[in-house]
Amino acid sequence: MEKIYDMIIIGSGPAGLSAAIYAQRAKLDTLVIEKGMVSGGQVLNTYEVDNYPGFPGINGFDLGTKWREHADGLGAVFVTDEVQKIEKDQGRDGEDARRAEAGELLHAAELAPRADIKLVICENGTYRTKTVLIATGAHHRNLGVPGESELSGRGVSYCATCDGAFFRNKTVAVVGGGDVALEDALFLSRLCEKVYLIHRRDGLRGSKSLQERVFRQENIGILWDTVVEEIQGRDNVEKLKLKNKKTGETRELPVSGIFIAVGIVPNSQMFQGTVDMEKGYIKAGEDGKTSAPGIFAAGDVRTKQLRQIVTAAADGANAVTSAEQYLSE
Amino acid sequence: MEKIYDMIIIGSGPAGLSAAIYAQRAKLDTLVIEKGMVSGGQVLNTYEVDNYPGFPGINGFDLGTKWREHADGLGAVFVTDEVQKIEKDQGRDGEDARRAEAGELLHAAELAPRADIKLVICENGTYRTKTVLIATGAHHRNLGVPGESELSGRGVSYCATCDGAFFRNKTVAVVGGGDVALEDALFLSRLCEKVYLIHRRDGLRGSKSLQERVFRQENIGILWDTVVEEIQGRDNVEKLKLKNKKTGETRELPVSGIFIAVGIVPNSQMFQGTVDMEKGYIKAGEDGKTSAPGIFAAGDVRTKQLRQIVTAAADGANAVTSAEQYLSE
Repeated sequence: MEKIYDMIIIGSGPAGLSAAIYAQRAKLDTLVIEKGMVSGGQVLNTYEVDNYPGFPGINGFDLGTKWREHADGLGAVFVTDEVQKIEKDQGRDGEDARRAEAGELLHAAELAPRADIKLVICENGTYRTKTVLIATGAHHRNLGVPGESELSGRGVSYCATCDGAFFRNKTVAVVGGGDVALEDALFLSRLCEKVYLIHRRDGLRGSKSLQERVFRQENIGILWDTVVEEIQGRDNVEKLKLKNKKTGETRELPVSGIFIAVGIVPNSQMFQGTVDMEKGYIKAGEDGKTSAPGIFAAGDVRTKQLRQIVTAAADGANAVTSAEQYLSE
Repeated sequence: MEKIYDMIIIGSGPAGLSAAIYAQRAKLDTLVIEKGMVSGGQVLNTYEVDNYPGFPGINGFDLGTKWREHADGLGAVFVTDEVQKIEKDQGRDGEDARRAEAGELLHAAELAPRADIKLVICENGTYRTKTVLIATGAHHRNLGVPGESELSGRGVSYCATCDGAFFRNKTVAVVGGGDVALEDALFLSRLCEKVYLIHRRDGLRGSKSLQERVFRQENIGILWDTVVEEIQGRDNVEKLKLKNKKTGETRELPVSGIFIAVGIVPNSQMFQGTVDMEKGYIKAGEDGKTSAPGIFAAGDVRTKQLRQIVTAAADGANAVTSAEQYLSE
């Protein structure tokens, strides 16, 4: 009979790592399943994190590493695998039944109903657990225009701090009007000759302090009411086909790179049908409780008003407390 | 006419400092009112903070200093004063009326109703603001037994990490059964010859990992089902009068010091009648909204399941977002 964990944490961004830290402190037998080989989630792609209280200006990769070391120091166990779905353990109706049919001798304890046990089914294995914490975060939204996927990695980027250095002294565009787009534009303006900020509306959504800095930066030009209709280029991005939404006018803009910062999408599709959702986000309050008993959600993947490193970290701590309560009931 | 702030933050613990950081980033005209001369709140009294993700083992005073520096670096403004109450600005019915009666010439704008403006009335001054964030935290609960206040600071302490060093190689008692009591007992066991942990029940409340460490520590003795009835001593603590709740038996225990760790009380009494409360905590959800529009609560002072540094920090960020929404409406 396979091991049954107290808690399986899916994801190793701030929410997952904070949960791993709190779960180790609470002596829960925990496994963290992470998709990639490096912990930290979206933080990894942040050049300078300025809003994790107490540590202004810390590099995202360094912060991710510190969190992982904190969890490692407490003995947290990690495995790299990709979660496909969460299922209820069917007990006798499931694997046990198959084993019984195959003539295996099963102990009474193995035959007991195990409706509370969840199976976390991954690409490379299946894990049994009493509770699950979904901390899978979110990812960048695509524009969905011709040329975007074809030229991805060849001038089309979703991470200015990752790829900006390739465009030193060149002309680039940033698409979007939120905090991330403004941060990207500012970051790129220090490297590139010229940065065009392309925004579909006539006002920015990002914070006022970022807006002020963008307006002050001489080599940032803002194209209002403008959408990208196509990204063109043979081997690499060469130009954008733009359209002004108010006048209907189209134009071409020669650029070497385009950074797309038009929002995020929760990484929740594999949990459709398992837990209730709202616009793709898993419905869960501050305590992380979802519609499914014993399944919790923390961080960017859940419904909440403010998605930040520090709120994800708080979510991780709260979800462990909720899981402890669930386990002791 | 006095200045009207966008936001006044009352308190400079993790919730208040995180809010100050986020408020500065959001370009809100903000004032932080702190009671003492040092920022950090209860964190200051923590010898070793092991649960702020990414920075295991950091000294509480150092962490408080880093948070304050982060806020200072963004231009946050602090004043030391003690808040007595929050009132609605009465407009013409209030100070303006007095000024009008005194024959002062008032401009029309000054006569407009200002029901949305709050007055934060302190010992040394009154401040006007559009929003208030209550982040006053909590403080240690007293035992309420004879000798406790008389011998406070002379052997009676509420902070092992502050005062423990005075009891090197002596015998002390810790009262309580939660995380703080266990942490205090462990900390003192490394300094003192003998530590008695006095708990009113027959099981501890603190985390399992702390319990295990307490049970393993040879110079910690646990007195179960026991309450302190009196703290005795002439100039300093000399002995405790104890009673076993199950047997009714009383005994004397000679100790040089007693560390009281029997829980916390929210610092909310001055806001009674201003906002709704529950068991002394200000009723507010994750978004920090209280029953009074424009007044928010963050950190240990609000109703919540888990009171930790990281959840207080998340509260501060969330409350600023809620205040921004309130201000833009």
